[in-house]
Parts: sequence; structure tokens; C-alpha cells
Amino acid sequence: MNDNIQINSEGKLKHFLSIDGLPRSLLTEILDVAESFVGVNDLQIKKVPLLRGKTIVNLFFENSTRTRTTFELAAKRLSADVLSMSIATSSTSKGESLLDTIRNLEAMFVDMFVVRHAISGAAHFIAQQTAPHISVINAGDGQHAHPTQAMLDMFTIRQIKKDFAPLKVAIIGDILHSRVARSQIQALNTLGVAEVRVIAPKTLLPAHVESMGVNVFYDLNAGLKDIDVVIMLRLQKERMTSALLPSESEYFKCFGLTEDKLKIAKPDAIVMHPGPINRGVEIESKVADGPQSVILKQVSNGIAVRMAVMAMAMQKQGAVQ
Amino acid sequence: MNDNIQINSEGKLKHFLSIDGLPRSLLTEILDVAESFVGVNDLQIKKVPLLRGKTIVNLFFENSTRTRTTFELAAKRLSADVLSMSIATSSTSKGESLLDTIRNLEAMFVDMFVVRHAISGAAHFIAQQTAPHISVINAGDGQHAHPTQAMLDMFTIRQIKKDFAPLKVAIIGDILHSRVARSQIQALNTLGVAEVRVIAPKTLLPAHVESMGVNVFYDLNAGLKDIDVVIMLRLQKERMTSALLPSESEYFKCFGLTEDKLKIAKPDAIVMHPGPINRGVEIESKVADGPQSVILKQVSNGIAVRMAVMAMAMQKQGAVQ
Amino acid sequence: MNDNIQINSEGKLKHFLSIDGLPRSLLTEILDVAESFVGVNDLQIKKVPLLRGKTIVNLFFENSTRTRTTFELAAKRLSADVLSMSIATSSTSKGESLLDTIRNLEAMFVDMFVVRHAISGAAHFIAQQTAPHISVINAGDGQHAHPTQAMLDMFTIRQIKKDFAPLKVAIIGDILHSRVARSQIQALNTLGVAEVRVIAPKTLLPAHVESMGVNVFYDLNAGLKDIDVVIMLRLQKERMTSALLPSESEYFKCFGLTEDKLKIAKPDAIVMHPGPINRGVEIESKVADGPQSVILKQVSNGIAVRMAVMAMAMQKQGAVQ
Repeated sequence: MNDNIQINSEGKLKHFLSIDGLPRSLLTEILDVAESFVGVNDLQIKKVPLLRGKTIVNLFFENSTRTRTTFELAAKRLSADVLSMSIATSSTSKGESLLDTIRNLEAMFVDMFVVRHAISGAAHFIAQQTAPHISVINAGDGQHAHPTQAMLDMFTIRQIKKDFAPLKVAIIGDILHSRVARSQIQALNTLGVAEVRVIAPKTLLPAHVESMGVNVFYDLNAGLKDIDVVIMLRLQKERMTSALLPSESEYFKCFGLTEDKLKIAKPDAIVMHPGPINRGVEIESKVADGPQSVILKQVSNGIAVRMAVMAMAMQKQGAVQ
Repeated sequence: MNDNIQINSEGKLKHFLSIDGLPRSLLTEILDVAESFVGVNDLQIKKVPLLRGKTIVNLFFENSTRTRTTFELAAKRLSADVLSMSIATSSTSKGESLLDTIRNLEAMFVDMFVVRHAISGAAHFIAQQTAPHISVINAGDGQHAHPTQAMLDMFTIRQIKKDFAPLKVAIIGDILHSRVARSQIQALNTLGVAEVRVIAPKTLLPAHVESMGVNVFYDLNAGLKDIDVVIMLRLQKERMTSALLPSESEYFKCFGLTEDKLKIAKPDAIVMHPGPINRGVEIESKVADGPQSVILKQVSNGIAVRMAVMAMAMQKQGAVQ
Repeated sequence: MNDNIQINSEGKLKHFLSIDGLPRSLLTEILDVAESFVGVNDLQIKKVPLLRGKTIVNLFFENSTRTRTTFELAAKRLSADVLSMSIATSSTSKGESLLDTIRNLEAMFVDMFVVRHAISGAAHFIAQQTAPHISVINAGDGQHAHPTQAMLDMFTIRQIKKDFAPLKVAIIGDILHSRVARSQIQALNTLGVAEVRVIAPKTLLPAHVESMGVNVFYDLNAGLKDIDVVIMLRLQKERMTSALLPSESEYFKCFGLTEDKLKIAKPDAIVMHPGPINRGVEIESKVADGPQSVILKQVSNGIAVRMAVMAMAMQKQGAVQ
């Protein structure tokens, strides 16, 4: 997939579809703009008029109250109008094609699509097909990418660790099916961390995973050594039945993050998780709620990062001063 | 049904329930006001403060994401607050009567109901029963009327053809079950086109259809001759099973609009469709996406026309300056 | 349950969870503030900027279009942003715990939770657990409390009867399962009415109901004598099957309010009902729509009272000037 459509001729963000293909300078710009929005959430009146009169459509083909909510809040704090459409695949197939849906919404003069879809590449497809004045933000497509999640993770890491260069980061869990992991690995490597490790059972690792620029560990104890940032992935419980995994308790014994395991990492290591967490499956409550956990900081930063991406994508056409 | 309740004592629009009973001057006024709103959709800030502080309730007893979305966008661009209520008939019957629902919403000081209902006459009933300060807009009632759809079609025709007087218009498809067709025929005749034709198999035509002021054709080739405006109707696939129709492919062969068939009409004929389209059933993709198609223009104009109707109905009580 | 968490150290309302534990002065303040908001609903622009930039989350674990709508309208008329989340218990148990949901929303910098839940004490639990800057409003929890309903009833009574002191009030129907009744009894006693009566069959009365400060009547005729305010409760039809009640018609014969029965009360008695009403089950249409009924006034007052409670709870932290 060609990600150059993400950037316009002046090098500005037009769509935000995946981390892949974006230069370090642009990722850093997103983090900087997000930082300027963190303060908005502390204001008495948590609103800036940046996108007033703009219409942002939440186009969710896959249900996700949580992600939809953060995008809706981000849009409202930018003073945009938000239209939330939950489109079950069934009704799309019944009614009209995806492309006809897009064409119709374009004709209603909307300004941005926030797309979540179970099929990898859906957001790219829409960005390729849509009218030039419309920006597309990928809110998760199949097993491909979840770039705003990755950027809020990067924001949280920078907030605490300041500098990416010396960091060793471990991503633990179902790398194979995780769009979050894919985007995180790309972002971490683009931002130049010292090392990215993935720690997982063989059945949950993609083939040739090393080519993504990671070191592979099958053993949690070995993988956590010297680590600055521990990123846990959510275990999709559906996988359990698919013979890729033994039991939940077996998984927790091998790859679940406990207080004891965490001691293997550096003493000031931080623990991250994209949520929602499965307590006692991939992470112990003591760790999730413990002093090294920054899980709720991630949620908070998610609003500012989404505001940043939305505002920047809108600016591409000089739509925003 | 008495449509005079649509107009107040000064001849101003109070409710918008059906085209039936509205004079040409009022239809023309709607088109003119809509024209003034077309520009709003091009502004950087796509909002006018006309209905600020007003509460518009989308009262949808029949599901329709598409129509609800256009009304919601129109309301928001007029700066109104929108309350969207999807009321399954079952829950109404369980909880309280339609009239009690209306009485309760009135008591909450709302200003307008946009009503969609599977039963013909539902919007009229609500308009008759509701408090005097509330306006009712019909967003489709049973097989009776869909007046805002008809007016956005008229707007699109005038936009391209300028003058209604010389036009020959053909409406093709399931006239029998179509509230859209009923409203279109009334609007076209009120605005004084030269001829309205309906083209359909006998099983999809109402009895005494000629009394509606149309010429009837059972043959697409004959009916398309000399036509300026081709209006396709959506084929409700549910009808297929009801023995009113042979197969989809059989229907397409006889009444589907293809490039070849379209050549029978005037060379500058335009093609319209209320959407969503069934590609390959009532219309060929080449035609739907072709140079004579104005289908997406209709969608765009739908926002402006709905803004116009809402603003005019609100003005009746001097509520808007 | 300790209700002191409702009041902050300066005696101001912080949460609104139940009437229990609130002093008369605070209930009177709510009524007075609500009175100042009644006028807003009559303005051309029905909005005050009091909560602009605040985010209010409707957290409805139990479905209720009606109550959700009134809270949403109240919030919008205070210019707040509203996020409506319908959370089926099933999806909560699947995804994450209630507490994790709350923690996540907190992290998104929301300002208020309006909570409806089938379990008694749910709103208290959330108020105890949530961050200090967040206010919780109980919109109905199990069979425990529905304090905003009780306060809009008090507002309506004061509006018409002016003074609480001389009033004799009868609450009729399913006291046992009614959170509304529980809150009404507490409010009426706190505001110092002369007498509160409950009238119901034995099977629909809680044990030791007298300890709530009411006189018990099993006979409607006897109970209605000298009454100033008649409060009907909604009969939950589900109860019918549970052997607590004979047939609907049998119930109506004994406890349904008819014109004849109403004559037993004082000639200027008012009739109230929280809605939605079951016509012909607990109340005759002639009474519900008759001159002594104030049922729709209750609905109207509900907006002002909810605006008052929201504005006051927000003021606790000096968030509102």
C-alpha cells in the first residue's frame, strides 16, 4: 500500500492512515501539536474554535464505543460538528456499496471521515477514492494499522522518558493479529528508539517478524531484561478457541505481566496497555493499577493526540488558520 | 387529508407535510430560499445562526440513516440543537401511545418534529394534534408523501434546466408503492411542466393513475422519447417476492436504465434517482456515474432544501428574524 | 448507604444521588434555582452559557429514552457537550469492569456522569469511586432512588400549592418496587408536608413501610379523603405475571384513579404521575387528561429541575461563576 497519499505536495498531513511512510519530522510535529492541546483539557471551557462549522463523520463499520467516544470528544473540543454513523456490514451490503455511501456523504459537504473497519486497507481505499477536500483518519483497519493509538503511546512515552534514543521497548502479546503493535513498531523505529522487542509465543507472531525491525523473544523473563517501556497488548479472547493458544491461565503463567516479572525490567520502566484490559489474563491488577502503570495517562493523551491529528489534517487545505 | 394546516393565516408555511395543497408561489419560495442556503455549504464555517437555541426532534418510527443524516446536518448548519429518537413501533405500543409521546416532547419545549413513519398520514396526524408553536416536517410517511425529497428534485431540475414550463419528465419504476413518486408528480404539475409521464409495468401502477395528471407508458422505449428529465425510482427488493414482479434481471431488461435506452431521451436529458441505487437492477452503473447523472447533485441540494423548509416553517411564528 | 458524599465541606451539592440525607434548605435551594431556569425554556434562544465547554456523560446501563432525553435537553440548554452511552450490562461484563469504564471516562476529562442503573446503589458506588472533580447525578438506580424525579414533583407541587406545610399527599400504587415513591416520600417529609399516605395492596408495600414516615391505606376510598395531592405510580406490567397482582382490570377496579374516585379528594386536588402512563390500568384517560392533572407540567418542570441540579453540582468546585 502506498502511503504517500497521506502527505500533500507541501509535505503537510492530509490523511492519517498509517505510520508507515511518514517521516520522523512529521511524527514529531504531531507530538508537538498534541502537547499544545493538552492544556485545553484543563481549561474551564474545554473548547477551541479551530474546527467550528466543520463536519466530521465517524464512519464505524466495526463497533467500538471506546474509540468512537475519544474521537467524538476530540472533535467536539475542536468545536466541530460530529455525525456518528455505525454501519453494520450487513446493512451496507443490503443498501448500497461502500463507495456509494462515501459519495453520498461527500455530497453533503462533510470535511473528514474517521474510519474504523474490520478489513485491512479500508481507510486507504476511502482516502484514495474520496474527494480532494476531505481528510481521512484511520481509527483502526483490520490487522493493518491503528496510527492514532500508536501516536498517543509515543506521546505518553515522550512525556515521561523525554528522549526516544536510549529507550528499549518491549511489546508483549498477540503481535500476529494486532494492528496496534504494527503501528507501534513503525512509530518506535521511525522515532529512533534503541531497540524494539516483541515477546510472544510463536503462534502469535507473524512470519518474518524480524523484518519489521524488532528482536524476537519467546520468553518473557529474557525479553524484559533492561527494558524501559513495557507495552502489553490486549488478548482477544476469541483467539482462545482457535487453537492458537492453550488456556487463559496457561497464557497468563507464561506471558501475563505480574509484579514479579516487572521487576526484571528497569526499575523506572513504565507499563502501557491500549485497553480495555483483561485483568488476570495479560496483566495482573496490581501492575495495571500500580505506580509504574501509565495506562490512564494514555487515555488522557488520546484526546490531545486525536485533536492534533484532526487539526493538522484539516489545515492541509488552508481550511484552518 | 386536508393539507391546509400546512399554511398559516398569512399564507406562510407552518408545517411541511405534502406537496398537495401548496400553491406554486410557495413551492417557488422554497426553491428560492434553498438557493440562498447553497452558499452556506461552501463557507469555511458552514453554519448560520438562524435556529440557534431551537430544538429539533428527529422522530423516526421507520429506520433511515440516510434521511436522518441529511436532516441532522441541515439542522446543525442552522445552529439548532438536534435530538434524534429512533422509536421502534414495538416500544411505542409497549410504553405509551404516539400521542402521549408527542405531548411529552411538547412539554419539553421542543420546536419542531421531523417525522418518518411507515403509516401514511402519520405526519398529518401529528401536525393536527401538536401544540400550535410546533412545526412538523414530513420525512416520509408510508406510501403517501416525501415532500422534501420532491423539492430537492425540483431544485435540481431548476438548477440545470432553469425553466419548468417546456419540460417533459418521465418517472420510471415502482410508482404504486412510491411516496417519492407521488410527491414528485404533484410538485411537477404544480410547477407547470409540459408533461409528466410514468413508465412502469401494470402491476406497479396505482389504479386510476391518470387522474394524478400523468401519461402512462408500459414500454420504456416509447416513454423515453423527447424526455428532458429521467427520474428513476428505487426498486424495493422486497417486492420481488410478492409476485408483483418477475426476476430482477427480467425487470432490468424491461425497465432498467442503460446507456442505450438513455439515448432515446433528449441528448441533454438529466438522470435522477432518490437513492440508494440498486446498480444493475433499476439503473446501470455507467448511467448512474455517467455525465448525464445528477444523482449526487440531488444529495447536495437536499441539505439546502431541508435547511430552507426548516427555516421557513420556524419563521411562521415570528420565531426567526 | 452514607449520603454525606452528596455535600461538600461548604455544604454545597456535589453529587445528587438521593433525597436521603439532604437538608430542607438544600432541597429548597434546588427548587429556587430551578425556578430561575423555567424562563430559559420560554426564550427565543433557549440556552444559557453556564456549562459551556463542560462534558456531561449520560451513562445509561438501563434503557430509558425518556429520562435520557430530558437530561440531554437540560444539558444542551446549559450549553454543555453531551456524550450519550448506552451500556448493556452484557457488554460491560465482556469488555471491562464498571470501574475501568469510569476510570477511562475520567481520563478523558469529563465533568459529570448522569447514571441510570438497574442495581440499587450503582450511582453511589460511582460517586464514591470517581475522581474528585467529577459530579454524579442519579437518574434512577434499581429500587433505591430517583431524586430528580422527586424534585420535579416537589417543584410542581410548590408551583401550584405554594406552601408544603398544610398539604396531605397520597402516593398510590406499587410502592414496593418504586424508586420514585421512595424519593418522593423522603422529599415530602423533608419539606414538611402535613401528611404522606401510601395506598396500595399489601403485596405491593415494603415491610415496615410506616417507618418511612407514612400512613398506610389499603383502600383507595379511605385513603383519598382530604387529600391535596394525588401521586399515581406507573404499574410495571411485568409484575402482573409475578403473582403479586391479580389481573389488570382487577387492579384498576381497586386502585385505578377514576373521575369518581378523584371526587373523594379535595376539590382542588392535583393529580401527578411520573409517566409513561398506562391508560386504563392505573389511571383513567379522563383523569390523566382532565383539569386536575398536572402530568405534562411535571414533564416541563423536569427540564428546569435537571438544569438546576446540574448547574449546582458543577458549581461545587467553583467550576461555574
